[in-house]
Amino acid sequence: MIKVYYPYGEFLDDLKTLTEQIDQEFDAIVAIARGGLGIAMMLGEYYDIREVYAINTIGYEGSQKLDEVKVFNIPNLVNAKRVLIVDDIVDSGDTLVEVLKTLQDSYSDVSFFSASIFYKPTASIEPTWWVKEATEWIEFFWSEDLS
Amino acid sequence: MIKVYYPYGEFLDDLKTLTEQIDQEFDAIVAIARGGLGIAMMLGEYYDIREVYAINTIGYEGSQKLDEVKVFNIPNLVNAKRVLIVDDIVDSGDTLVEVLKTLQDSYSDVSFFSASIFYKPTASIEPTWWVKEATEWIEFFWSEDLS
Repeated sequence: MIKVYYPYGEFLDDLKTLTEQIDQEFDAIVAIARGGLGIAMMLGEYYDIREVYAINTIGYEGSQKLDEVKVFNIPNLVNAKRVLIVDDIVDSGDTLVEVLKTLQDSYSDVSFFSASIFYKPTASIEPTWWVKEATEWIEFFWSEDLS
Repeated sequence: MIKVYYPYGEFLDDLKTLTEQIDQEFDAIVAIARGGLGIAMMLGEYYDIREVYAINTIGYEGSQKLDEVKVFNIPNLVNAKRVLIVDDIVDSGDTLVEVLKTLQDSYSDVSFFSASIFYKPTASIEPTWWVKEATEWIEFFWSEDLS
């Protein structure tokens, strides 16, 4: 598969595009770790939302894909009404589906929305907002620039 | 107070310096949100640690400084032995002190270490590792670049 480096400048441009699309307000942002952390941080600053949380998932044990994605470290959303979940890429969609399900089960009164930079049309779920179709293997700057 | 813009390139250089200082291994990284999220994400990639968590604090109610920092969304560290806590800046030190206290109370068997990019010598605690003394008001790229 072709690998394409994704630099900070492009990330910034794509985040700007994302904010132009997002036509809702939120009380809180939940980052799917690790990939969503940078997006959540910058959108939190942009929208002046201090309630920026993280949630963790495990989809692999070593190189073995698990039958289902395990979700843990569920943030406290008891005061939230509208929550944006963010990730870098929605690929199979398994992670976002399971995170949404877990959060909605825990907080049935909260409205959840989702956003990603990249999205594969073959995914089992389409995030509410996304910027680019993923056609290659993306080497995100946060994975590459320090090594 | 003089404001100084802190760009991504300098952040990257400083993270490299930080990794040259860090002479320990960890099972997990805990980011103090929001400021520590980007550091945790990139160190998680660098050290190949998937256990990257966030913790939240409130030190202000509006512009009113609270008597004590409230810590919430404590991550599950039950399988961790050595944990690195990261933040962008240790200023008064109140946040790091309270996060360390809360985590150590919850996980008495875990060894906690801490790292920040910036540190003020007047802080009530010195992180285990830090890169630069904070002498001005720092406008971090993640707060500025999208706006």
